[in-house]
Amino acid sequence: MMLKVNLDRIKSDILTLAEIGRNADDRGIYRMAFTDADIEGKRWLTDRIHAADLDCRVDGAVNLSGVLEGKSDEPRVLVGSHIDTVPCAGALDGTLGVVVGLECLRIIRESGQAMRRTLELVAFSDEEGRFGGMLGSQSLCGHLNPERLATMKDLDGVLLQDELRRHGYDPLGALDAARDPDSIASYLELHIEQGPVLDRLHKPIGVVDEITGLFRWSVWLRGEANHAGTTPMDMRNDAFMGLADFAHEIPRILEENGSERTRATVGKAQILPGAANTVPGLVEFSLDVRDTSEIVLEELQTAFRKALSAIARRRNLMFEFEQSSYIEPVKCSEVVVRELSEQATKLGFEYHSMPSGAAHDAQIMGSIVPVGMLFVPSKNGMSHSPSEWTAWTDIEAGANVMLHTLVRLANDL
Amino acid sequence: MMLKVNLDRIKSDILTLAEIGRNADDRGIYRMAFTDADIEGKRWLTDRIHAADLDCRVDGAVNLSGVLEGKSDEPRVLVGSHIDTVPCAGALDGTLGVVVGLECLRIIRESGQAMRRTLELVAFSDEEGRFGGMLGSQSLCGHLNPERLATMKDLDGVLLQDELRRHGYDPLGALDAARDPDSIASYLELHIEQGPVLDRLHKPIGVVDEITGLFRWSVWLRGEANHAGTTPMDMRNDAFMGLADFAHEIPRILEENGSERTRATVGKAQILPGAANTVPGLVEFSLDVRDTSEIVLEELQTAFRKALSAIARRRNLMFEFEQSSYIEPVKCSEVVVRELSEQATKLGFEYHSMPSGAAHDAQIMGSIVPVGMLFVPSKNGMSHSPSEWTAWTDIEAGANVMLHTLVRLANDL
Repeated sequence: MMLKVNLDRIKSDILTLAEIGRNADDRGIYRMAFTDADIEGKRWLTDRIHAADLDCRVDGAVNLSGVLEGKSDEPRVLVGSHIDTVPCAGALDGTLGVVVGLECLRIIRESGQAMRRTLELVAFSDEEGRFGGMLGSQSLCGHLNPERLATMKDLDGVLLQDELRRHGYDPLGALDAARDPDSIASYLELHIEQGPVLDRLHKPIGVVDEITGLFRWSVWLRGEANHAGTTPMDMRNDAFMGLADFAHEIPRILEENGSERTRATVGKAQILPGAANTVPGLVEFSLDVRDTSEIVLEELQTAFRKALSAIARRRNLMFEFEQSSYIEPVKCSEVVVRELSEQATKLGFEYHSMPSGAAHDAQIMGSIVPVGMLFVPSKNGMSHSPSEWTAWTDIEAGANVMLHTLVRLANDL
Repeated sequence: MMLKVNLDRIKSDILTLAEIGRNADDRGIYRMAFTDADIEGKRWLTDRIHAADLDCRVDGAVNLSGVLEGKSDEPRVLVGSHIDTVPCAGALDGTLGVVVGLECLRIIRESGQAMRRTLELVAFSDEEGRFGGMLGSQSLCGHLNPERLATMKDLDGVLLQDELRRHGYDPLGALDAARDPDSIASYLELHIEQGPVLDRLHKPIGVVDEITGLFRWSVWLRGEANHAGTTPMDMRNDAFMGLADFAHEIPRILEENGSERTRATVGKAQILPGAANTVPGLVEFSLDVRDTSEIVLEELQTAFRKALSAIARRRNLMFEFEQSSYIEPVKCSEVVVRELSEQATKLGFEYHSMPSGAAHDAQIMGSIVPVGMLFVPSKNGMSHSPSEWTAWTDIEAGANVMLHTLVRLANDL
């Protein structure tokens, strides 16, 4: 008999968890990491894991696991995501991957078929970044140290270690969460796309082949603030016009140095002093650039730096920049990608091969073990909002592809 | 004997007035209209007018006058500017024109030469705009009404009428300040340039031939806020990129439709939601456009509107704008311009014919009587700052040109 997820249980789990941390006024979910709502969510998930008759484990980073022991002690297959949310979140970001993972393990356990490899559902702590993001997967990968753990704080200045203590957890426990990469065969994650591509293509499944890396700069162009009426156009050092020149060159720079997977965004810009009758003397703006190739990212860094320098020279501005983050791109495991694609085809679903433009726990996990990701469509590309949604039929499709891939990875590969 | 201003008295008046409203920390002058410091400045000026043996008058708008009666009752010649300041001002903006006007009348009175026309020094109230700007000259020109007077307030919400009452003035008195245009032959104003042109040309005198008009728009481009990583470049409605496209077209639009006197400035811009990892969904920005020709301003309005519409269509944005102000350009009186130029030449000063890019009381006065303006250089084009300055020799040059022009206008023209 062909295994199939039970959509009603997935529905019920998603809708139940969506009520934990829900704000009645804006209908958004506020289950930020280590808030009371998040802890309540973890408690709910613990109960569901027990109810599914899986072994429930909590590691030092408060990552929750549900384990289905295999027949062998070969490296295990992990499936998961996170249940913490951004403020005013929707019901699916992270949660869907955890709920689907739980349903897959539940179905396999109920089927009575013993798997060769152990299967483990993981719900990672603080993916969304109340305390910086990807805390749980970084802990599991052994990326943390006591100094970072002791100083991580949220936007209100609350220290992570104080929140952990408040809930009765060891503030340095995350250091114990590190695992031996050899104990893990692969990590799989199903996630909503958070972009418009699948929705526009009307395809229910995205098989992620690469997770984009990114660099993010803060850029300053300094000119001279002057009177907008009395300063002739050719005597200005207009910092804003420097930014406009730069923005105008972005398409050319992408055409010359980027790939079809490159994204470049100026999302934040401050124009100072910011008066209608004053020529801007200073602009500070962000540049967020993503691609799936490290080489492309490097070439883009060079091209953007050259363009900014040239504009600054031409407009008589001072140019400074600071790289505020760099994340390496990650290639998904070819074996997992092939398996996800084949299972989709077998089940009769059209899939789209695509990069992940957003960061996920899979990106961190990809630094130590083979990973794979499955996307389901986000209606209108919406996420991080109460209107984030995915059709139940697409969720069912994604869950069944995940189920069959897990069975293959746990038994045959 | 050839009349000459007394530079020491000008120096002393400027430096004394500069101490009224001075902040010890930032060295800026805070003599905003109808603050206690401004009233103290008005009191000081009243004393100086009395000391110069001129008739002192105060009208309903609290414009202060010093009058030197002429032999005839022919229309009088006015000379003046303002002594209120922006916050954190320098010592010369406005003040210089008043102090120089006072010195001119003082010298003429002391010379014992009776003039045919009456000469009147005016120091206008609230030129700088605590309550909207040009209050004194608008009152004199009869541009105000009770409704506007009753509702004018400063940025802190303080009503003009309350400030006037607080100092013992009639809150509707400004309506009594309107004068018969036939009683005035011309209005002259000496002012610092507040721009870099004379300083770069190393010329001590600018003779203003036209005062630029302006239109100011608030513009909104509305797109869609999206995830910077997951939204492909060709699926974005990036509001900021619309603004960048527009800024990039400003030089073309000026070349095609403007004159060498056109200035166009985007001085203020807000990019929303304003996160590094989010494609901007909304920009709101200011557009300030100036020229000395009404026809050119009209053509520029059309061109800017067309450019914005086309960009919005191309980038799939919504475009809205609102004209927040329109000020008509003013031509200076040919007679006054010729006289100022001739006196400069006679006194051996190189002068530069130029527009005024900033608004001044002369612009308002130009709506009812012939006007003329004289600029002296602003070091590095600086103004509205404690580092605003003009060499004493340039001030002396400007003052002597004004003195001889006033004598000619009061006697021979």
